[in-house]
Amino acid sequence: MYDKNNVFFKILQKEIPSNIVYEDEVCLAFHDINPTAKIHVLVITKGCYTNFADFVTKESAENIQKFFQAVARIAERLGISGAGYRILSNTGHDAGQEVQHFHVHIIGGEKL
Amino acid sequence: MYDKNNVFFKILQKEIPSNIVYEDEVCLAFHDINPTAKIHVLVITKGCYTNFADFVTKESAENIQKFFQAVARIAERLGISGAGYRILSNTGHDAGQEVQHFHVHIIGGEKL
Repeated sequence: MYDKNNVFFKILQKEIPSNIVYEDEVCLAFHDINPTAKIHVLVITKGCYTNFADFVTKESAENIQKFFQAVARIAERLGISGAGYRILSNTGHDAGQEVQHFHVHIIGGEKL
Repeated sequence: MYDKNNVFFKILQKEIPSNIVYEDEVCLAFHDINPTAKIHVLVITKGCYTNFADFVTKESAENIQKFFQAVARIAERLGISGAGYRILSNTGHDAGQEVQHFHVHIIGGEKL
């Protein structure tokens, strides 16, 4: 069950400021305030999905494609697509998912 | 440029054995031989893509949806969708991508 009382929903609504690097009709991307590498960007869906499984089972094929293509495009714009980068998404307690709004981490800018 | 001379292509062709956990028309999933957690499964595309960006820019929306839905389904079948899990994909040198055939790691079964 999606709960709008989360920090990413507020960032989407621009109620909480973020350092935005990319935005389109399906996603918003901004720098993580606690980066784990030189480059650490979060890409969140505009749609309200709690996690990865929720997103890929409920969203349309077209928007799933658009979202992941945006992730690849953002890595390119960040200048890390050549050297390489990691994408990851945490679901639930064991993975330490902190915000219950689906998001993908793009991590790079150095040897991981 | 995709090069068929890689271990995942050989696993797809069943030239090299693997401990398969799931297979459908778009992907094959098997246990990582060097697990980094109690559960560590690799999901590889049946199509020949070098990495994440290659996959999401060249594959159809329908097959991208099918692939990621399969990833979520596999986590469920592995019994880790409740406690949680991490999915990740490494691209290039900085992320230590070891095999140049697109794959997603599903990691869980314990607190990460």
